[in-house]
Amino acid sequence: MHFHDNHRKVDYVLAYHYRKRGAHPGHGSPGHSLAIVSNGETGKDPQAGAPGDIELGPLDALEEERKEQREEFEHNLMEAGLELEKDLESKSQGSVFVRIHAPWQVLAREAEFLKIKVPTKKMYEIKSQGSIAKTFNKILHKLSEPLKPRVPEHSNSRMKNLSYPFSREKMYLYDIRDKDTFFDNATRSRIVHEILKRTTCSRANNTMGINSLIANNIYEAAYPLHDGEYDRPGEDMNDRKLLYQEWARYGVFYKFQPIDLIRKYFGEKIGLYFAWLGLYTSFLIPSSVIGIIVFLYGCATIEEDIPSKEMCDRQNAFTMCPLCDTSCDYWNLSSACGTARASHLFDNPATVVFSIFMALWATMFLENWKRLQMRLGYFWDLTGIEEEEEHSRPEYETKVREKMLKESNKSVVQKLGTSGTEAEDEDDEDKLTWKDRFPGYLMNFASILFMIALTFSIVFGVIVYRITTAAALSLNKATRSNVRVTVTATAVIINLVVILILDEIYGAVAKWLTKIEVPKTEQTFEERLILKAFLLKFVNAYSPIFYVAFFKGRFVGRPGSYVYVFDGYRMEECAPGGCLMELCIQLSIIMLGKQLIQNNIFEIGVPKLKKLFRKLKDETEPEEADSAHSKHPEQWDLDYSLEPYTGLTPEYMEMIIQFGFVTLFVASFPLAPVFALLNNVIEVRLDAKKFVTELRRPDAVRTKDIGIWFDILSGIGKFSVIINAFVIAITSDFIPRLVYQYSYSHNGTLHGFVNHTLSFFNVSQLKEGTQPENSQFEQEVQFCRFKDYREPPWAPNPYEFSKQYWAVLSARLAFVIIFQNLVMFLSVLVDWMIPDIPTDISDQIKREKSLFVDFFLKEEHEKLKLTEEPAQRSQSSGHRSRRGPAASPAPSGRSQPGSSASSGSQHTSV
Amino acid sequence: MHFHDNHRKVDYVLAYHYRKRGAHPGHGSPGHSLAIVSNGETGKDPQAGAPGDIELGPLDALEEERKEQREEFEHNLMEAGLELEKDLESKSQGSVFVRIHAPWQVLAREAEFLKIKVPTKKMYEIKSQGSIAKTFNKILHKLSEPLKPRVPEHSNSRMKNLSYPFSREKMYLYDIRDKDTFFDNATRSRIVHEILKRTTCSRANNTMGINSLIANNIYEAAYPLHDGEYDRPGEDMNDRKLLYQEWARYGVFYKFQPIDLIRKYFGEKIGLYFAWLGLYTSFLIPSSVIGIIVFLYGCATIEEDIPSKEMCDRQNAFTMCPLCDTSCDYWNLSSACGTARASHLFDNPATVVFSIFMALWATMFLENWKRLQMRLGYFWDLTGIEEEEEHSRPEYETKVREKMLKESNKSVVQKLGTSGTEAEDEDDEDKLTWKDRFPGYLMNFASILFMIALTFSIVFGVIVYRITTAAALSLNKATRSNVRVTVTATAVIINLVVILILDEIYGAVAKWLTKIEVPKTEQTFEERLILKAFLLKFVNAYSPIFYVAFFKGRFVGRPGSYVYVFDGYRMEECAPGGCLMELCIQLSIIMLGKQLIQNNIFEIGVPKLKKLFRKLKDETEPEEADSAHSKHPEQWDLDYSLEPYTGLTPEYMEMIIQFGFVTLFVASFPLAPVFALLNNVIEVRLDAKKFVTELRRPDAVRTKDIGIWFDILSGIGKFSVIINAFVIAITSDFIPRLVYQYSYSHNGTLHGFVNHTLSFFNVSQLKEGTQPENSQFEQEVQFCRFKDYREPPWAPNPYEFSKQYWAVLSARLAFVIIFQNLVMFLSVLVDWMIPDIPTDISDQIKREKSLFVDFFLKEEHEKLKLTEEPAQRSQSSGHRSRRGPAASPAPSGRSQPGSSASSGSQHTSV
Repeated sequence: MHFHDNHRKVDYVLAYHYRKRGAHPGHGSPGHSLAIVSNGETGKDPQAGAPGDIELGPLDALEEERKEQREEFEHNLMEAGLELEKDLESKSQGSVFVRIHAPWQVLAREAEFLKIKVPTKKMYEIKSQGSIAKTFNKILHKLSEPLKPRVPEHSNSRMKNLSYPFSREKMYLYDIRDKDTFFDNATRSRIVHEILKRTTCSRANNTMGINSLIANNIYEAAYPLHDGEYDRPGEDMNDRKLLYQEWARYGVFYKFQPIDLIRKYFGEKIGLYFAWLGLYTSFLIPSSVIGIIVFLYGCATIEEDIPSKEMCDRQNAFTMCPLCDTSCDYWNLSSACGTARASHLFDNPATVVFSIFMALWATMFLENWKRLQMRLGYFWDLTGIEEEEEHSRPEYETKVREKMLKESNKSVVQKLGTSGTEAEDEDDEDKLTWKDRFPGYLMNFASILFMIALTFSIVFGVIVYRITTAAALSLNKATRSNVRVTVTATAVIINLVVILILDEIYGAVAKWLTKIEVPKTEQTFEERLILKAFLLKFVNAYSPIFYVAFFKGRFVGRPGSYVYVFDGYRMEECAPGGCLMELCIQLSIIMLGKQLIQNNIFEIGVPKLKKLFRKLKDETEPEEADSAHSKHPEQWDLDYSLEPYTGLTPEYMEMIIQFGFVTLFVASFPLAPVFALLNNVIEVRLDAKKFVTELRRPDAVRTKDIGIWFDILSGIGKFSVIINAFVIAITSDFIPRLVYQYSYSHNGTLHGFVNHTLSFFNVSQLKEGTQPENSQFEQEVQFCRFKDYREPPWAPNPYEFSKQYWAVLSARLAFVIIFQNLVMFLSVLVDWMIPDIPTDISDQIKREKSLFVDFFLKEEHEKLKLTEEPAQRSQSSGHRSRRGPAASPAPSGRSQPGSSASSGSQHTSV
Repeated sequence: MHFHDNHRKVDYVLAYHYRKRGAHPGHGSPGHSLAIVSNGETGKDPQAGAPGDIELGPLDALEEERKEQREEFEHNLMEAGLELEKDLESKSQGSVFVRIHAPWQVLAREAEFLKIKVPTKKMYEIKSQGSIAKTFNKILHKLSEPLKPRVPEHSNSRMKNLSYPFSREKMYLYDIRDKDTFFDNATRSRIVHEILKRTTCSRANNTMGINSLIANNIYEAAYPLHDGEYDRPGEDMNDRKLLYQEWARYGVFYKFQPIDLIRKYFGEKIGLYFAWLGLYTSFLIPSSVIGIIVFLYGCATIEEDIPSKEMCDRQNAFTMCPLCDTSCDYWNLSSACGTARASHLFDNPATVVFSIFMALWATMFLENWKRLQMRLGYFWDLTGIEEEEEHSRPEYETKVREKMLKESNKSVVQKLGTSGTEAEDEDDEDKLTWKDRFPGYLMNFASILFMIALTFSIVFGVIVYRITTAAALSLNKATRSNVRVTVTATAVIINLVVILILDEIYGAVAKWLTKIEVPKTEQTFEERLILKAFLLKFVNAYSPIFYVAFFKGRFVGRPGSYVYVFDGYRMEECAPGGCLMELCIQLSIIMLGKQLIQNNIFEIGVPKLKKLFRKLKDETEPEEADSAHSKHPEQWDLDYSLEPYTGLTPEYMEMIIQFGFVTLFVASFPLAPVFALLNNVIEVRLDAKKFVTELRRPDAVRTKDIGIWFDILSGIGKFSVIINAFVIAITSDFIPRLVYQYSYSHNGTLHGFVNHTLSFFNVSQLKEGTQPENSQFEQEVQFCRFKDYREPPWAPNPYEFSKQYWAVLSARLAFVIIFQNLVMFLSVLVDWMIPDIPTDISDQIKREKSLFVDFFLKEEHEKLKLTEEPAQRSQSSGHRSRRGPAASPAPSGRSQPGSSASSGSQHTSV
């Protein structure tokens, strides 16, 4: 954790792999001298270890070049004030770790420059709410005591330091007890990382920063160090161990997350992710409860549901038209009794209420997230931070360089005449224009279209599979009885497998496509990648569900004029209970399957396998490191063996797709929140474990919000309103029942509803060759029934849509309009009613400002007094006494600042 | 414009009215001494003028108290560093102007404190776009040359100073040539205003700031000075005169606005208003053009419109059922030919396209405003400013004081036991809680409900007027022919007058209600006032229009079972051409009338009258001021006689209501943008004139955006989508025509459409007593027709809604869903496609940041060198040579910052 002097902390580590080269006379051994210079003392063993092991041999030019670039870069780092230490390259090849320490001067300079807010001496009490809220909070506090993680920060949350951007001219403001610990580890490594990103290396094509060097394989890795080991027993506590014990174990799944500690250790970006995940999970609790209640309501009312009773009634059974041509027979509706009853579980009025609730829930969740974000921003002193300057990505720079090269080749003749300023101007202009990017964009557009088309065609393929298999199975008498179950189950499983496979492929494709686009900064890269990946994965996960919800069974035609595809296969119909049941099955299998498989295989299994694989590889490889070293490995060795951190995108993406399952089709599957909740309780700890134990420590990134994910979430929320409106209006039988009950029913009940929804068909009008062969139906059939609103055969215009059809359609559409606008209005209202900034936080911020005004004015006043005094003194120069200087340090207990600043200004004015 | 020493600028003026008091021994004449102290020299005429005029007399205690408060306040101001000057109170009563000057120290301190961004020495060129865009811009620039106001700032817009918040420790950064003019007048007065707001006065119940003092009548007015006179001919140019000549005259109506100058003179808030108004006006140009084209399309196709031709066809005329009971006769549809033809002007497919266009237009406008706001924010250095600290409103403080008083009276016994800290804590807690505000909220809620109910009942009253008058006029044969015209015209005018009157009343009521609420800060006050006023005025202006659009003619019933209100008055129907025509008339009259009358009477007439009135009053009052003074009045006298500035709310409100007219019902009145455009061209200059010539100079307020108005605008934009969807679907005949054309028509044309929309009625089924008396219809009537889709008398279920009715209704509702979601989707797309920050601006901001990094590091280096040199000197005191300092700047060409930092670290490590 420290340099060899056991004093200077290692703030960052650069790792590279070297192959030994011969001693070049021109270069000396700058590696050693570097270590010496930065250590401020002679290196430990430059004479002892180095000469013995030198192995002369031919080195390839690339390796040499890399070494020189590294040397230049490290030199530049030292020029920027950093202190470096590295071990000797004592073996023929191996890994070298360049340890970087940032001394106080550098930290102070950069902190001022990055406007890092640090606590000042001034503390103030956080205002508590009114007395009722206070007591309520106390009770809540006590009740939730066992749920709180035992983390020190949590104990003293009544006071907050006034923060102010660090400034070397206002050092008096801050409470600097120990310069080594004033900035915490995450901040220190952030500062070093900032310098690493900024430092140029002229040899490497003038590239900017460590990222380019890593991209060019000059360094292998760059990472800050973990705070220690998480599983060494009984030793002194470090933050990592604390996190592991109180957060990153399944055993503590019921506890709140120690968000402040997470933020302190991993930085704001990761802190926000876990805060978001926590809020989302806790928001799932009420919706799960209500979802279960809705489901139980369905179970409880199943016996009272008139339509399903009517369907199950064997006495007055309806004779239905055959489900397939020729080989299928007429059938009794009562045989579909089971589906009808199951359907009622999800297709009841409570679902409508539930889906309105869920739409508002989504809005509430987003609003509360905004509030939590503000609250965290306040406590983490993120208010008013500006966006950090973004450096170009290495790939972008390479591309620009290539372009410049090409253009300079082209215009070499023209340039001869131009003046220097113009050339400069041109240099300035060099960035990728729309023209340069056009091929990339085109490729992107085409690929995305292709991918979406691929998804659709797979969905269509599964449909074809279902139609043909159903037809084939129907031919065989033995299998006929459970055709529907078999076909549906296999088809859904195929869908699930395809989704899982494509999910991985699309993730890779999205990355590749974004690389083709060559976005300028890391941030745009991330945003575009997210958008593309989201689009592809969304389409992938939801298109089979959309098909079932809105298209299945709508293009069947009617008896006598069915719609045929592929030479005589009839389009598939929904089960007699309605498509909602099938939608529900589809949803639950895809959602559960996706979560279980992705969690178990991709998130637990694959890393385990990788670890195993690496272990095996390590064992087979010749052990080159000295045994003493491997027995007590340094922290940088340990961290080097961990996986590098690759961003939060996959974690967010998984949750967002899940959020889609929870909101989009909640009208058809009220249990979705329950399953999501169960998954997330595990997910939080799974992710936590990954971050604490399996990944290198990520760079602490300062950010105010979760960025584009919020927009995606709110987009899904809005989309879910219209989807749910359509599910209720079109897919479910809710509206037809309402219409029947209030317009057609004789006694205001649903008695006769099933009869009302079935149209008549005159079997004599069945097309030749499609009649059931060998009909074994118990009675003579003259009319068979089918589910649709059409005129009966004896009407003047038989089989046309009846007036009921249009009336029900109007009602369905009116419902969509009312539902959509009502829910949207309520969402806006909720959005407007809940202030984005919690009142107490905005009060605190105002209070902080006014406190700061006082603080500032007081310091100002002190300063003025101090500057005035010498002025007076110099006026009355003859009467100078020792009183002045003695008086000046006297009040310094409170006003050091003024004195130091004023002496500074005196100094320059002299 | 200056103090009497002709040197120090007057930055602010406080005015108060005094009545002479006797000489009190305890007080001396602090007024004089104030003037002396602040001037730094003896007052001009304390001995000369004062003693002669003193008039002894009894003074009331209030006047005395006020004087003392003023003295304390002025004393506090001087303690804060301001310099004051005032004339002697030489007469028995009169106005005194306290002139305030802010010296450099105060300006610098406050500028640092307020983080006012000022230009640094560093300038940089604003990057231009690519070459094509450049030439295009050049051409555009040349073309628009005559449209540009001739204002100096506009000439040099290629360079921009790097700005940085003012800091006294970094004075070297700024280009301070003249300390008197470094801060411009608006900034100076802003700084003084800030101090005025902050300064307390312990005598006046410890109130904070000038606003409380003005509210308590201790001062009468506080205002910064105008830059000079705007109409003095031939003198040197000042900004006010420039503004007048290039902006605030009708003669320059065709020119762009000099936004930068407006901002410089009036501050950012007013600058943003005019920028917004300008953008809105220029956005009205394309929509006007397209609106006119749509209208012309209607005119051009009027001859080809089959339905209106069919209606006008006298040969095959339809016999319509009577329009009123008993006294009305059957009539031929061809007699309504005129209305039908007029209807077509607005009810044609082009309107649908136009209303989609206008929905997108609204989104585009808002997006472009966001961009313009960002652009202005960049050029005006508003990026990254924090919200200013808000002080409590005087009313709020009074209320809190009252509450505290009451509570302290109550808890006087309890307090005896409590310690000091708790009392302090209680003091801290004292703010208005929800309980205190509850009556106010209740009052608000009740009043708003009452106002809305009032509006609705007035609308209903007008409906009743229409119904009864129409019935009365129908009785009389002479008036029968133009009943509809008379009734509609008078009703609309009544509506208009009511709207205008209620508008004024509601404005006052909203203000009153907001005062009752006692919001804490000026900003919340403004926001709540705006919301309330907007709600009331919106309902007021639009409720008659909503009635005509969506309710009129929908509750008529059918022949044989009409709906009756008030003892036998039939509900009113729409004209045979559809309600759209009437909606159009209603809209145009209300919009035009509102604009013309409000502009002419309220904005031009009333101020003129006020002026005239004041002039008359001045003339009748005894002239007390000495004549020399009135001949050459000082600027503060002149400004004092102007109207005080009362905020931008009415200006914004007028425009927002107009925006509603332009977007909400644009489907029925495509000419609305044209009229809005004509109005706004005048409005811009009218407002400009008001600000330049008729108002006291407003305090320059720094703000980044237009605040709540943007939310209201985008709310109206969203609301307009659904309103237009409904207007097209429900009010216009667009959907029935489409349905007829594609489902019922035999040849795919609209031939027979009119017949299709008319149902049959068997006249024998008319209720007893409602048949036409003395029918003079030329032929025997067995069936009369009425406009509705109902089953004919010979059907099994006569007069029920027919299948067509439901089919058309389905189509209408489907259209609403499709239109709404399509347009919303397009809006989101437009919103997403157009980046909120213009690319060039975001590039500039990034560039500015990186420039600033360089600049900062360079300055850093310089500073370090300065501090290092003495240190080195003292170190190597014996071996001192010129080599060290000379070598240090040598490698600075490439790595200035690095070297300085490393040398810094050396320095400290030693």
